[in-house]
Amino acid sequence: MKAFSIRSGIFLGILLIAACNNQPPAERKESVRSLPSWNEGATKQSIVDFVDRVTNRNDPAFVLPAERIAVFDNDGTLWSEQPMYVPLVFVVDRIQQIASLHPDWKKKQPYRSILQNGVAGISAIGEQGITALIETAMGGLTTEESDALVKSWMTKARHPELNRPYTELIYQPMVELLQYLRSNGFKTYIVSGGGVDFMRPWMEQAYGIPPEQVIGSLMDMKYEESPVTHQPSLSFFPKMGFYSNGPNKPVAIRQFIGRRPVFAAGNSDGDRQMLEYTATGEDKSHFAMIVHHTDAQREVAYDRQSRIGKLDQALNQASKAGWTVVNMKQDWKTIFPAQTSGSN
Amino acid sequence: MKAFSIRSGIFLGILLIAACNNQPPAERKESVRSLPSWNEGATKQSIVDFVDRVTNRNDPAFVLPAERIAVFDNDGTLWSEQPMYVPLVFVVDRIQQIASLHPDWKKKQPYRSILQNGVAGISAIGEQGITALIETAMGGLTTEESDALVKSWMTKARHPELNRPYTELIYQPMVELLQYLRSNGFKTYIVSGGGVDFMRPWMEQAYGIPPEQVIGSLMDMKYEESPVTHQPSLSFFPKMGFYSNGPNKPVAIRQFIGRRPVFAAGNSDGDRQMLEYTATGEDKSHFAMIVHHTDAQREVAYDRQSRIGKLDQALNQASKAGWTVVNMKQDWKTIFPAQTSGSN
Repeated sequence: MKAFSIRSGIFLGILLIAACNNQPPAERKESVRSLPSWNEGATKQSIVDFVDRVTNRNDPAFVLPAERIAVFDNDGTLWSEQPMYVPLVFVVDRIQQIASLHPDWKKKQPYRSILQNGVAGISAIGEQGITALIETAMGGLTTEESDALVKSWMTKARHPELNRPYTELIYQPMVELLQYLRSNGFKTYIVSGGGVDFMRPWMEQAYGIPPEQVIGSLMDMKYEESPVTHQPSLSFFPKMGFYSNGPNKPVAIRQFIGRRPVFAAGNSDGDRQMLEYTATGEDKSHFAMIVHHTDAQREVAYDRQSRIGKLDQALNQASKAGWTVVNMKQDWKTIFPAQTSGSN
Repeated sequence: MKAFSIRSGIFLGILLIAACNNQPPAERKESVRSLPSWNEGATKQSIVDFVDRVTNRNDPAFVLPAERIAVFDNDGTLWSEQPMYVPLVFVVDRIQQIASLHPDWKKKQPYRSILQNGVAGISAIGEQGITALIETAMGGLTTEESDALVKSWMTKARHPELNRPYTELIYQPMVELLQYLRSNGFKTYIVSGGGVDFMRPWMEQAYGIPPEQVIGSLMDMKYEESPVTHQPSLSFFPKMGFYSNGPNKPVAIRQFIGRRPVFAAGNSDGDRQMLEYTATGEDKSHFAMIVHHTDAQREVAYDRQSRIGKLDQALNQASKAGWTVVNMKQDWKTIFPAQTSGSN
C-alpha cells in the first residue's frame, strides 16, 4: 500500500505536468511575481495593490479573469520614441530606398524634404505629408512582402544615438509589468497609433504579445485573385484606413476587443482618451497609468512642450482624476534591458 | 524517507493542481475529446484526422498551438439563417419599434417596405436599402444602449416558424466542433458579415467565444466628452464602416487576427474567399469546410438558387480544391440542442 501511494503521488504529478504542458505557450502562465526593475515606492506599491485586489475573490474590487483586459500604448510607453517614432523611421528608410525609381520625388513634396533631410525632414511636411509617405511606402505591397520588409529592417536598424537595435530600447520595467499582469490572469494588448503591420512581426518576441493582441493604425486592403495564375493575394491600397490615436483609441478598443479595459498605460496626450475610457468604467475596478519621461541622464526628459510624445492635457487630467504617474527617473532601477551579445 | 516521499508526491500534486486551476477560465482547456452529434463517416473522420495530425509533434503536419487559429462564419454555419439572417430581423424589429417617432417613414423607402411587410419587406429594398436600415437602427446609440438592446431582444425574440429563441437554433454539432478544436489548443474566432455589436453580447454563452474573438461588420464610431457633464461616451455614427463579407473576410482576418487561419468553416459564397485564404496558406496545414444545407426535414434544404445563404461558386471550388463538404442530413445526428426548459 505504501509503495502504491508513492507511485500514485508521482503518477499524479506526471499527469498534472502533462496537462499543464499541453497548453498553448502563448496562454501558459508566466510566473512573474515581482517587478525587479521597479524601485520600491508609491508607484510600484499602487500597481501591486491593484493587482492583489482584482485577483482576490474575497475583495470587492475582484475582476473576473476573462475581464482582466490591459491595454498599452507602444511608442514612449513600452519603448523609446525619441528622437522620432520608430514606425516613421521605418517609413522614411523605405522612401529613401525606393526613391531611385521615382526621379520626380527630388522636386516633389513631401518626398523632397525626406530625400534632403532624412528623418529630420518629417518636421517640415505636416500630418498630411506623413500620411502620404506612409501610403506611398506601404501601398501595393502584399502582406507577405510587408512582413518580410519589417522583419529585415528590425534586425538591421539602429537607434541613431544609442547605436542599439530598437528591440533593445524597450523599457525593461514595462516588459516586467506586462509579464506580471499576465501572470495574474490579465490579457495584455497593444493599442498604438503605429501601424499594426509594422508592430506585429516583432512584438511577440519583444513583449510576449501575440499578433492578435496588437491593435494599431490600418491601411485599407484588398483581397483578390490574380487573373492570370488565379492565386489569391492580400495587399495594401495606398490609403490609410484608420488612424488609431486620441479619441480613436477607445473606438479601436471597442471594435477589436469589445470589452472596456481595467488597466491602461500610456505616455502622451494621444493616450488621454484611452486612459479616460478605462478609468470611467463604472462597473469594474480600473487602473490608469502614465509613463512620465523625467530622466535626462538615462533617456530623455520631455513632456508639455515636446513635439514628439507631447504630454500636457493628459498630465493635468492624471492629477485631477488620480491616475498613477510613473516618474521614470525615480521609479525605475533600469530603463533598458541589459545589452545582449549580438545584434538581434 | 518513505513518508517524506509520499508527502512530496502529494504536495507536488497539490501544487500542480493549484497552478492549473489558477488559469483564467476562458483559457482553460475544455476536455471534449469527441463529436457525439456527428455520425461516423468520412466527414467526421476527416476532421478528427486533421486535428490528430496538427496536434502531434512527430507529424510533419504539426502546427504550433499559438498558430492554431480557427475561423467560423456565423449565419448558416453556426446557426440557422432561414427564413432571414437574424441580425437583420433585429434591425427590422428596431425600425418598427421606433417608427412612431418618424411619421414620414410610412411614405419613404426603405422604411415603407418594412412597415408594410415586416421582415419580408427586405427583399424589395436592395443592398443599399438594407445598409440604410442598419444605419438608422444603430446610428446615435451609445455602445451601452446597443448592448442592452441586443441582450433584451435576444431573450424575447422567437424564430417565426419554430417558435424557439434564436440561441436554441444554434447547430449542436458545430458547438461540439468549436469545443473539440479548443480542447485541442485551437483559438476559435467568428468572422461574420453580421454586425459585431449584434453578436458579441450573447456569443460567449452560446458558443464559448469571448467578445475579443468575434469579428464582424462595423459601424463608424465616435468617442466624445459631453460638453455639459464632461462624461465621455462611445456611440455609433449612422454610417456602416466595414462590411465583413466576401473578399473582406480575409481582410478582416489580417487586420484583426494578423495570422492566416489553419481551419475555416463557412456555408455560402460569402465565405468563399475566407476558405480560399485559409486553404492556400503554403507554410502550414489547413482545413476548409462547408456546411451544406441538405436537410429539408430537420432544417431547410438550399444552396445554388437560394437568395439567403447562396452556395454556388464556393461549392464548385470545394469540389475542385478538395474542401470538406458537410452533408447536414447525413453527417449530423441532431441539428439543434435539446429543448431547454425555459425561454433563456
